[in-house]
Amino acid sequence: MTYVKPTQVVENMVQTGAAKASLSIWQMLLRGFIAGAILAYATTLAFTATSQTGLGIVGAIIFPVGFVMIILLGFELVTGSFALIPLAVLEKKATVVQMISNFFWVIVGHVLGCLFYAVLYYATTTNMGHVDDSVLATMIAGIAESKTLSYSALGASGLLLVFIKAILCNWMVTLGAVLPMTTQSTLGKIVAMWLPIMAFFAQGFEHAVVNMFVIPAGMMFGADVTVGDWWLWNQIPVLLGNLVGGFTMTGLFLYLAHLKKGSTLPVTSNEKTAMAAVNAK
Amino acid sequence: MTYVKPTQVVENMVQTGAAKASLSIWQMLLRGFIAGAILAYATTLAFTATSQTGLGIVGAIIFPVGFVMIILLGFELVTGSFALIPLAVLEKKATVVQMISNFFWVIVGHVLGCLFYAVLYYATTTNMGHVDDSVLATMIAGIAESKTLSYSALGASGLLLVFIKAILCNWMVTLGAVLPMTTQSTLGKIVAMWLPIMAFFAQGFEHAVVNMFVIPAGMMFGADVTVGDWWLWNQIPVLLGNLVGGFTMTGLFLYLAHLKKGSTLPVTSNEKTAMAAVNAK
Amino acid sequence: MTYVKPTQVVENMVQTGAAKASLSIWQMLLRGFIAGAILAYATTLAFTATSQTGLGIVGAIIFPVGFVMIILLGFELVTGSFALIPLAVLEKKATVVQMISNFFWVIVGHVLGCLFYAVLYYATTTNMGHVDDSVLATMIAGIAESKTLSYSALGASGLLLVFIKAILCNWMVTLGAVLPMTTQSTLGKIVAMWLPIMAFFAQGFEHAVVNMFVIPAGMMFGADVTVGDWWLWNQIPVLLGNLVGGFTMTGLFLYLAHLKKGSTLPVTSNEKTAMAAVNAK
Amino acid sequence: MTYVKPTQVVENMVQTGAAKASLSIWQMLLRGFIAGAILAYATTLAFTATSQTGLGIVGAIIFPVGFVMIILLGFELVTGSFALIPLAVLEKKATVVQMISNFFWVIVGHVLGCLFYAVLYYATTTNMGHVDDSVLATMIAGIAESKTLSYSALGASGLLLVFIKAILCNWMVTLGAVLPMTTQSTLGKIVAMWLPIMAFFAQGFEHAVVNMFVIPAGMMFGADVTVGDWWLWNQIPVLLGNLVGGFTMTGLFLYLAHLKKGSTLPVTSNEKTAMAAVNAK
Amino acid sequence: MTYVKPTQVVENMVQTGAAKASLSIWQMLLRGFIAGAILAYATTLAFTATSQTGLGIVGAIIFPVGFVMIILLGFELVTGSFALIPLAVLEKKATVVQMISNFFWVIVGHVLGCLFYAVLYYATTTNMGHVDDSVLATMIAGIAESKTLSYSALGASGLLLVFIKAILCNWMVTLGAVLPMTTQSTLGKIVAMWLPIMAFFAQGFEHAVVNMFVIPAGMMFGADVTVGDWWLWNQIPVLLGNLVGGFTMTGLFLYLAHLKKGSTLPVTSNEKTAMAAVNAK
Repeated sequence: MTYVKPTQVVENMVQTGAAKASLSIWQMLLRGFIAGAILAYATTLAFTATSQTGLGIVGAIIFPVGFVMIILLGFELVTGSFALIPLAVLEKKATVVQMISNFFWVIVGHVLGCLFYAVLYYATTTNMGHVDDSVLATMIAGIAESKTLSYSALGASGLLLVFIKAILCNWMVTLGAVLPMTTQSTLGKIVAMWLPIMAFFAQGFEHAVVNMFVIPAGMMFGADVTVGDWWLWNQIPVLLGNLVGGFTMTGLFLYLAHLKKGSTLPVTSNEKTAMAAVNAK
Repeated sequence: MTYVKPTQVVENMVQTGAAKASLSIWQMLLRGFIAGAILAYATTLAFTATSQTGLGIVGAIIFPVGFVMIILLGFELVTGSFALIPLAVLEKKATVVQMISNFFWVIVGHVLGCLFYAVLYYATTTNMGHVDDSVLATMIAGIAESKTLSYSALGASGLLLVFIKAILCNWMVTLGAVLPMTTQSTLGKIVAMWLPIMAFFAQGFEHAVVNMFVIPAGMMFGADVTVGDWWLWNQIPVLLGNLVGGFTMTGLFLYLAHLKKGSTLPVTSNEKTAMAAVNAK
Repeated sequence: MTYVKPTQVVENMVQTGAAKASLSIWQMLLRGFIAGAILAYATTLAFTATSQTGLGIVGAIIFPVGFVMIILLGFELVTGSFALIPLAVLEKKATVVQMISNFFWVIVGHVLGCLFYAVLYYATTTNMGHVDDSVLATMIAGIAESKTLSYSALGASGLLLVFIKAILCNWMVTLGAVLPMTTQSTLGKIVAMWLPIMAFFAQGFEHAVVNMFVIPAGMMFGADVTVGDWWLWNQIPVLLGNLVGGFTMTGLFLYLAHLKKGSTLPVTSNEKTAMAAVNAK
Repeated sequence: MTYVKPTQVVENMVQTGAAKASLSIWQMLLRGFIAGAILAYATTLAFTATSQTGLGIVGAIIFPVGFVMIILLGFELVTGSFALIPLAVLEKKATVVQMISNFFWVIVGHVLGCLFYAVLYYATTTNMGHVDDSVLATMIAGIAESKTLSYSALGASGLLLVFIKAILCNWMVTLGAVLPMTTQSTLGKIVAMWLPIMAFFAQGFEHAVVNMFVIPAGMMFGADVTVGDWWLWNQIPVLLGNLVGGFTMTGLFLYLAHLKKGSTLPVTSNEKTAMAAVNAK
Repeated sequence: MTYVKPTQVVENMVQTGAAKASLSIWQMLLRGFIAGAILAYATTLAFTATSQTGLGIVGAIIFPVGFVMIILLGFELVTGSFALIPLAVLEKKATVVQMISNFFWVIVGHVLGCLFYAVLYYATTTNMGHVDDSVLATMIAGIAESKTLSYSALGASGLLLVFIKAILCNWMVTLGAVLPMTTQSTLGKIVAMWLPIMAFFAQGFEHAVVNMFVIPAGMMFGADVTVGDWWLWNQIPVLLGNLVGGFTMTGLFLYLAHLKKGSTLPVTSNEKTAMAAVNAK
């Protein structure tokens, strides 16, 4: 019997959030760095698949490869944590300061990891700078412009638009962090998390960590985007939208739908502890 | 040994139906809202896949993503319950009033969740109202017209037609709710429920909750459909057809085919209780 | 350890055959009806997939969906039983009369279930009779003619041809009924039974229950086929070929290859009993 | 924990080889006959898939269906045994005479089973001899010529070529017989054996049992090949190459890489016995 | 519960590295030889798939077949060991000399195994030297030139480029060696290791063992590449890049992210020992 019931899933979410909140800065940086780099790797894999087939859906089907590796190996993904640590705070198992600290240091790790991969990928795609019109370079530069300039062209409503797309994205990303908790089987986890990740990527919604790679990489490949454009028209509103979407649509809905109101979570079974401990040292 | 025998499946169906009948209004609304929104999300994912490949079967293969998430996370889907709660009523484990209350409040949740997603999806697809001829907008508007006007053009026989399509749809949807009960493995549940959901979607039958998204979304995208058309020519007959199809073809047939006549279900094994409790708090 | 050894599989075949032989007429009719209808549903799903892609192999890959649902939910499929009940008779665990009774009543159920789906499918495909040249209608009518008239054109050798195709079909269908017995995992069962069902469908061999839907449905869609053509040139020789193929190629070969000669099967393990009981009440 | 370690796999290989060596002639003939016929069935399935898609890789992906059924149901495949029985002889658990007897009788069974299927397949593909230019008939005839005449055209180096292709083939086929021993799960076995079988088929290497069907079937379909061509330029060198490839590349390499030198295998765990007994009565 | 936690995975990595470091030369040569040959086999399989479909992503999806066989059967792959044995050295469970010895002898085995397959593959692809313009021969020759001459054309920066591509490759290959440790299920292992292997191959990064086959094979097929080009512009920098990428990005990151600093690994559970022993005799 590998199936785990929803009420227990919610308890595991709180435990996992608490464990994440208690990581050291060093761990958050390291795990955030490698997670960012792996997600960037999977992004270029997806772009390769889309570019070869001309079908975005093929890229989306292959993209979760990176997410799966991050979750199975216990690295930190801030977008996933957006649904978990706030619940731990709600249940008094973590403090707001711990939560913000986790978000901050993991994001720093993500940015560094994404830039690290972007530099290496730039080198390989351009043959050390000698070729600048490869299909993928052009594709990534175009996406970077689309993910910033198309919003700034709309002004304030562009900010709202990117915010909405970030909500729709991270609702699914956080389900991708929660669904593997419905099973104790590794293969079951892989398949369960695959589904929502594919769902958001296929529809082109906005994921903060993917963008930490795509936009600066696009800038290297010649996109007409400034660092200000990147953060103002994309990175900041996307992080906020990811937080709102992940916390409300996944964290809060599951919490309210499956837990007794007003009660502090009982921590009883070994299983829960084991699951929660996965991402803690 | 993850396989669960049919007789036990039928008992689990009754237990699950009883558990659903005893949910609070708050739970029914919440779980119905998020289930509706997730199903709507999966619908636009399927449309994306179909639109890119030109193959409806590809959209159908990917569509069950949403159903899987709803079932694994214990949300409420009224179309699935159509096969379960009536059995609990038959077995005197729930009252007719409880059943109708569940159907009503979950449907309210579905409508709200679908409208919620429709508004956000409209915003992203039209770039906050600036673009109104995207491929998907046109596709959804066309489907909305097809799902209403093509029936009203046939008059009374159109009502019968949509009713039949709703029976054929929900026969499979309810099998999608029952087949995961044949296994205790989460991955087994995912695969088992995938099959019938793919089967109905590929053939274009009528699913009430999908339509709660597709038709109003189509109206936003410019379909020439009124709220009256939506409910008269589609939503009401589809809900009735879904109820008839789900209850008779799945609920009643399994009940009659595998259970002793006249007996009240014995509730003995822990396993049954555990399975039944999945969707209850 | 989910793997079940061949010798035990053969014992399970005998037990399952015996259990099937002892069903009530009511159960055989009900389970046969719903199985026929589900198989017909899967057939139109496969035709949809083939029609959209122009590839018969795609339809074949998706067709087993129906077979899986029938087996997991313990419904009756006479073509599968052709390999099981005769073994129970051989082992004196069922009588010839019981066997013939099972075949007869389940076939009656299949015919009724297939006709039931054919009528509903006709209604939806023709928009209640208003459209008669849809792609699928034309396809099904053509298949119905091919499955009858092309044999009658050959005379006696046509009867032999359809008989051979029925043998080749049901050899695999019965392996589809036996292979899930090699595992105790539901997912394992799904995959194991998928393989032979796909194998026969892809090669266009003749399956009695599929034909109980395809031919009358084709007649509704305008195929130039009489009820006499249907039964004389297809249904009767196909049932006989299915029986011969299923009993000899699967039932008898497995029995002779893996069991001690002359011995009555010992019934010892709980597991066997559990497996055998799956299809019994 | 379904994973089985390599050292234990090697021990299982020896046990299984010993069990195969002790089968009765009747069992070897029966199990060889049905295995040959199933492999032939899977071959025409693969040709169907390749013919429809124009892609050999699609046929290769679907071809292992037959191998899986043979292994799960404990039938005899001489090409698989080439890696197993010689190890049992090495370990003094079987005699050379037993080994040769197994090879001989199973091959006789294969030839009969393949011819049986070839005759039935010829009947269905040619509509009882009335059609002789179907796509598949032409394809199979062409393959039969290619698998004989293209080698004879090269003379002695053609014999070496077909011998090398047979080595490359059966290295993978025997891995297909060994890899399912790395797991106790039936689904795991299915997937594990799928991989090497697909790998050899996709690259067109020479498999003795497949050829026992393809070449005589091609002759029926009009290939300009004699029985002498079949055996001299293909069947005999392929059997020898399969034996050399299977025994050395899989049997001997695994034996030398994972077992203590000079030691007779200890037989201790129940598990090993159970696994080894799978193919024995 | 098949899932294994990251901290335990890291401990298994160290144990496995230690076990690999203590193999005999004979075992390292044998296991390296067969692993090299299997990887070469999978490479030509992937090229076949890519050649037929015109899509590199299809080749990448099928390529992991070889890696899976190597890992499940406990053969030695030096690129995988690059992340494991250095950790064992760090933890004082192996010496630097043992590590270098393992790398050396396994590489010798790889080169011999790859050349062995290259010769046989050359024979079959050219019909014993009679055909030298087959699609695959031309493709492989072109790749061999691209993997050497395109770097030498860039001079020193070409060396840096191939070094970077080797880092990006082996980061994933080593994740392919580590991810199967996250589960005790064989099927789970297969799927988990599939993902990163597919990810690197699809993007054309540089894998030392693949190149030990592709470049000499390409030379046989007429590539204008010398042995000096092969080793100077590819093999040596790729081995170094693979070592750096595998050790730092996978070995060190996992070690630092999940283990207590300064502590020697405790060896407690039987499970760990069992897992670590997989690759040892």
